[in-house]
Amino acid sequence: MKKLVEYIPLAFVFMFMACDNKAKTENAATAESDNMIFAKGEKITNDNFTGTAWLNSLVQADSINQNAVGSVTFEPGTRTKWHAHPAGQIILALDGVGYYQEKGSPKIIVKKGDVVKCPANIPHWHGASEDTKFVQIAITGREKGETAWLETVTDEEYHGKP
Amino acid sequence: MKKLVEYIPLAFVFMFMACDNKAKTENAATAESDNMIFAKGEKITNDNFTGTAWLNSLVQADSINQNAVGSVTFEPGTRTKWHAHPAGQIILALDGVGYYQEKGSPKIIVKKGDVVKCPANIPHWHGASEDTKFVQIAITGREKGETAWLETVTDEEYHGKP
Repeated sequence: MKKLVEYIPLAFVFMFMACDNKAKTENAATAESDNMIFAKGEKITNDNFTGTAWLNSLVQADSINQNAVGSVTFEPGTRTKWHAHPAGQIILALDGVGYYQEKGSPKIIVKKGDVVKCPANIPHWHGASEDTKFVQIAITGREKGETAWLETVTDEEYHGKP
Repeated sequence: MKKLVEYIPLAFVFMFMACDNKAKTENAATAESDNMIFAKGEKITNDNFTGTAWLNSLVQADSINQNAVGSVTFEPGTRTKWHAHPAGQIILALDGVGYYQEKGSPKIIVKKGDVVKCPANIPHWHGASEDTKFVQIAITGREKGETAWLETVTDEEYHGKP
């Protein structure tokens, strides 16, 4: 029995090593899940959104390229007003779960990896789902003018059946 | 001493639990790092690339939107030929470490979260660094025609000082 007792300190050393590695790995995993590709940018302060959203303006439209590109982070429950883009828009869903709806069509659920092509001048809205944030890249052609902002998305519209 | 000996089986149970959790966490971390937002798509088989690259064509240019959007994954050492876009291109770096070079300028290092705006008709190339893959979203206007493919990027050009 004495021989086995001699292993007790060694056993505790192994326990400590295992736990220590586990803690490091968990920290790395947490950092990874928080580590978005693009920073969430500045809080949007205009009244074109219901709720809290953040914009990181990645590319300004200019004479070199007529597209504006931005990363938008919608906190849960947050959505845009109804609006329309004179040259349309492409949405790339980077993270979370969101909604997208065109006037006259049911809202659709948009998840990480989904792509939406929104035609020119079609009123629509997008945003996060009730319980999960939504992160999107928006690619918006500015060659035909600025976004036309329309009415607020009502709670009834927002919570409508997908 | 007998009392301490009684803890030996318990110590081994804790060791096993700690190691088991560690293994699970490491697997999750590996899955997370492999879990790209967009699938890498199809292996590119044309001769416009040196090395191995993959294309996931997310958006085709059409009458609704004149931009094509694709996710390209370059394996380490892989690069495009020199080429030029009649309406320019926007590159969003999603993962890894890559290179971008315009004719007459030094190559630059492009990393996860970086954005490059490539002017119209400027010959350039892009690709992965020697040791690390590179994943990018390319936004390419098709309204002025297709990409003009030029000469191969030599090893000297590829390995040039950033």
